[in-house]
Amino acid sequence: MPLITLTSDFGIADGYVGAMKGVLATLAPDVIAVDLAHDVPRHDIAHAAWVLATAAFEFPLGTIHVVVVDPGVGGGRAEVVIAARGHLFVGPDNGVFAHVARDHDGAWAITSPAFRRPQASPTFHGRDVFVPAAAALARGLLPQQAGPPTGLAGRLPWQTPAKLAATPPGIAAVGVIVHVDSYGNLITDLAAGDLGGGTPRVRVAGRDLPVVRTYEDVAVGELCAYVGSARTIEIGVRQGSAAEMLRVSRGEVVWAR
Amino acid sequence: MPLITLTSDFGIADGYVGAMKGVLATLAPDVIAVDLAHDVPRHDIAHAAWVLATAAFEFPLGTIHVVVVDPGVGGGRAEVVIAARGHLFVGPDNGVFAHVARDHDGAWAITSPAFRRPQASPTFHGRDVFVPAAAALARGLLPQQAGPPTGLAGRLPWQTPAKLAATPPGIAAVGVIVHVDSYGNLITDLAAGDLGGGTPRVRVAGRDLPVVRTYEDVAVGELCAYVGSARTIEIGVRQGSAAEMLRVSRGEVVWAR
Amino acid sequence: MPLITLTSDFGIADGYVGAMKGVLATLAPDVIAVDLAHDVPRHDIAHAAWVLATAAFEFPLGTIHVVVVDPGVGGGRAEVVIAARGHLFVGPDNGVFAHVARDHDGAWAITSPAFRRPQASPTFHGRDVFVPAAAALARGLLPQQAGPPTGLAGRLPWQTPAKLAATPPGIAAVGVIVHVDSYGNLITDLAAGDLGGGTPRVRVAGRDLPVVRTYEDVAVGELCAYVGSARTIEIGVRQGSAAEMLRVSRGEVVWAR
Repeated sequence: MPLITLTSDFGIADGYVGAMKGVLATLAPDVIAVDLAHDVPRHDIAHAAWVLATAAFEFPLGTIHVVVVDPGVGGGRAEVVIAARGHLFVGPDNGVFAHVARDHDGAWAITSPAFRRPQASPTFHGRDVFVPAAAALARGLLPQQAGPPTGLAGRLPWQTPAKLAATPPGIAAVGVIVHVDSYGNLITDLAAGDLGGGTPRVRVAGRDLPVVRTYEDVAVGELCAYVGSARTIEIGVRQGSAAEMLRVSRGEVVWAR
Repeated sequence: MPLITLTSDFGIADGYVGAMKGVLATLAPDVIAVDLAHDVPRHDIAHAAWVLATAAFEFPLGTIHVVVVDPGVGGGRAEVVIAARGHLFVGPDNGVFAHVARDHDGAWAITSPAFRRPQASPTFHGRDVFVPAAAALARGLLPQQAGPPTGLAGRLPWQTPAKLAATPPGIAAVGVIVHVDSYGNLITDLAAGDLGGGTPRVRVAGRDLPVVRTYEDVAVGELCAYVGSARTIEIGVRQGSAAEMLRVSRGEVVWAR
Repeated sequence: MPLITLTSDFGIADGYVGAMKGVLATLAPDVIAVDLAHDVPRHDIAHAAWVLATAAFEFPLGTIHVVVVDPGVGGGRAEVVIAARGHLFVGPDNGVFAHVARDHDGAWAITSPAFRRPQASPTFHGRDVFVPAAAALARGLLPQQAGPPTGLAGRLPWQTPAKLAATPPGIAAVGVIVHVDSYGNLITDLAAGDLGGGTPRVRVAGRDLPVVRTYEDVAVGELCAYVGSARTIEIGVRQGSAAEMLRVSRGEVVWAR
């Protein structure tokens, strides 16, 4: 049986995560549920999208990832199953899959009764739609059986670098901060290969930073840039928080040269 | 083997949850432990009771639920096993089982040495009594073997609606807020069927609210009432916190008409 | 297959714990990963050391414990496998194993390619070194195959009681607060046997406290000392926080008489 991962903004003070695990244990008793992250900031779609991007593809092929960060539950956004890079994703089409589904192989709306509980609560699709859909997939139903093929409407709330103004002279690449992690590290979408030759530098929030191997290469409390664990340029402070020091947040533009 | 769920106010910064899982893995190696909720607010019995009520019965019949929200550990409250609706519950008799045990089939004090570690610590019954008891049940011992039958003394710290004053004219039902979730939604014990005919309204904290299908049916920041995921009347704010907006908390009286 | 436990300061808002579980599921599909504690305060090595000490040995012999509280990742501290009391420990040699490895049977640096991912990220050894090493051990490789034997350099940031000044007259033993738990209980390294005969007392922060069986033996809000769940002397307040009341923290000296 495949693994099913669970990501949500439910926290672990309430019964919501437990209810989803209970439904999963009832509908697919042999499946192992893996908690990915449940303290995603409330309603923070872009945060969840990055969490998923950094963790999902480390799992074995065939893993099913359920994401329930769903401020518009019961409203107009669709419920979807997505196939991408040998993994399956189940959740709301609100942007949470923007990173992982960039090159997806297909997406289907969840309309089949075999993929939903009857009389789903309009406020808890995690329990009544997404986990039942994941359980159906784990039992061997195909994503195509969930419902009709669909396009994906969910977007992240910033422009991608390609849509920004032309790269100014002396700048190798321009990107944005896509995630601020719980240490205050600023993670960008600039790839290591975006750095210029010679002695590369990274500019953010009016600061011009050296690119080092890791924050351990600078003094305690000092800012630096490095290739982070997601293989993209990251800005950090040794034993400190870059987010606090620079007072910047997600969506901020970053330049490499 | 049955599943064993774990609910506590231990948080996940300390070794307490880990110690319980270790004892369980030692005493019942084939059992799968499922984390329900560990960030229950410290010593908050009524919160834990609701968490359990909304999650426990989603699990397969035969699941064993361990709850360790136990401010009186080592004092006078009893340690119990409860059978209710095909599930087993293990923990302190302090009110945490008030919802799930409303129509229970039996309760037994945990006195047998087969259900406890020798020389149990007076401050950590989760590790030394409740998990060993759950492991004994998982291995096939019967609840009746835990110890003598007992009544349940634990109560929730508010009056049930039936004990409130007679329903005033024009009011269909009266209830209380039984839980405030981490989104600030106010969950009541009024059932959907408690709503009056015609155009039902819900009154709380001097406000008179429309009953809608879900918070997505009102404007962002607006208050409303709806049938929540526990199938009871709930009061919420679209993309906001009803608890903060109304400044009410658990135990507050609510009227439906 | 053995169990693998995971302890970190990653929290559960980010993808770091998920990435580790994904790598583990890929490299050792039959192993069960057990979350021990992920809300260890950021970079708090001594906190993690105590969490591990109170939980690890409750697990079955042969369990592999991965700890990723690693402020110096990518810097000079070594990556190690430790064998102690029939358990295996994997993580940075920075003090997190100071309690569990007190009487260890061997320690080895992790240098073998069979125990690491190629091109490990210098900022995420949890994913690229420690979990791959644990997976190798779970699949049957020996700790000796990880790399050359090594001494352990990691220390806790306080003097052990034995190195303090000679015990003053009337004092049976002197120790330190080794942990403050999330309830505000102060946990010391004084053993129950360190207490003097007659009517033992414990001194801390200018207060002289009775030794009782449990905080349930004193009035609500009152300070007391007792033998805690780790079998060492602990200082607590019934339904309150001793850490807040006494304004002391880890490393504070405590006397028993």
